[in-house]
Amino acid sequence: MKFLTEYLSFNIKKRRGFVNITNNISNLVSKSKVKEGLCLVNAMHITASVFINDNESGLHHDYEKWLEELAPHAPVKQYKHNDTGEDNADAHLKRQIMGREIVVAITNGQLDFGPWEQIFYGEFDGKRSKRVLVKIIGE
Amino acid sequence: MKFLTEYLSFNIKKRRGFVNITNNISNLVSKSKVKEGLCLVNAMHITASVFINDNESGLHHDYEKWLEELAPHAPVKQYKHNDTGEDNADAHLKRQIMGREIVVAITNGQLDFGPWEQIFYGEFDGKRSKRVLVKIIGE
Amino acid sequence: MKFLTEYLSFNIKKRRGFVNITNNISNLVSKSKVKEGLCLVNAMHITASVFINDNESGLHHDYEKWLEELAPHAPVKQYKHNDTGEDNADAHLKRQIMGREIVVAITNGQLDFGPWEQIFYGEFDGKRSKRVLVKIIGE
Repeated sequence: MKFLTEYLSFNIKKRRGFVNITNNISNLVSKSKVKEGLCLVNAMHITASVFINDNESGLHHDYEKWLEELAPHAPVKQYKHNDTGEDNADAHLKRQIMGREIVVAITNGQLDFGPWEQIFYGEFDGKRSKRVLVKIIGE
Repeated sequence: MKFLTEYLSFNIKKRRGFVNITNNISNLVSKSKVKEGLCLVNAMHITASVFINDNESGLHHDYEKWLEELAPHAPVKQYKHNDTGEDNADAHLKRQIMGREIVVAITNGQLDFGPWEQIFYGEFDGKRSKRVLVKIIGE
Repeated sequence: MKFLTEYLSFNIKKRRGFVNITNNISNLVSKSKVKEGLCLVNAMHITASVFINDNESGLHHDYEKWLEELAPHAPVKQYKHNDTGEDNADAHLKRQIMGREIVVAITNGQLDFGPWEQIFYGEFDGKRSKRVLVKIIGE
């Protein structure tokens, strides 16, 4: 069995944002030399997501608006979690909808993707340094 | 290590629908001859889901109604993504709630399932051909 | 390859509750003697979740309130699934938001976690015995 473990770092300048990390992950699959296996990509922070969807800015705008409707940031006092001094309770909720992790098949040494699949880092409580874990296993 | 990679195809006649694919996946686990391992099943399209829940038609009706409340299809102009000429922005949102993929343990050559677990393909933008990836790894 | 398969049992005394199972999973990773690999943890029942988030009671209160807003338990007659004699349709919906499973990397024989990541069992239809599956694979 072959393994690769890598950590990506992000520091999003705004509270929220989406970053396309497909090329980063593709390059790590090549580096791993795994031909058949699985690739796990997960946020290591609990107010961020890794998800697969479309690389289309209008859709990202729609996600932002929709998540804010389902789990509004303000008023921050509506959340007990924010009594701890944080103001990021909404980010913990948004991340549950968008998900912590993805698992992608590796076939013939490549991410085995459909035509529109792209991997995104989703930040819901930015302006600080955060990491994403990439773990590749296979042969 | 043993590997199996297979693709299932779907063409749902309506915009939305759920298809029980448990037997398809079970048969592929048998075909793989993997006794201990993991089975990844994921939608390869970003307006569809693979999820595990109950094989009960009333519940599927409830999911349909609930998802339509959380992410309504109409009016289509409420979504920026639909400015691209698409009318499926809601499908991209619904799929985030229901999920892209499942990972199931294989034990003694079988899907290691609880009493009610069944695997479903969830279509949110049908009337076109779409695929699901099945990747089995183990020994 | 090494494998470990274990089942955890829960019987939550209330309808809903969250249980921190991080130590249980850590101990199983040690027991497996896997140094590099993946750890799958999933609910085996379809009205329960396994998820990763913060070990903070205020946040758990926020999740409880938020999920009840997104998928209210009452009136039970609003759900067709409850025509079967069940009253747990809302639990099937809540579980889709919180997720069925997590996949965690194992690096150097340990769960490869960010600073705040903790694993929780989420019960949405308790007062009965339920199980969680832990499957570890690697080397």
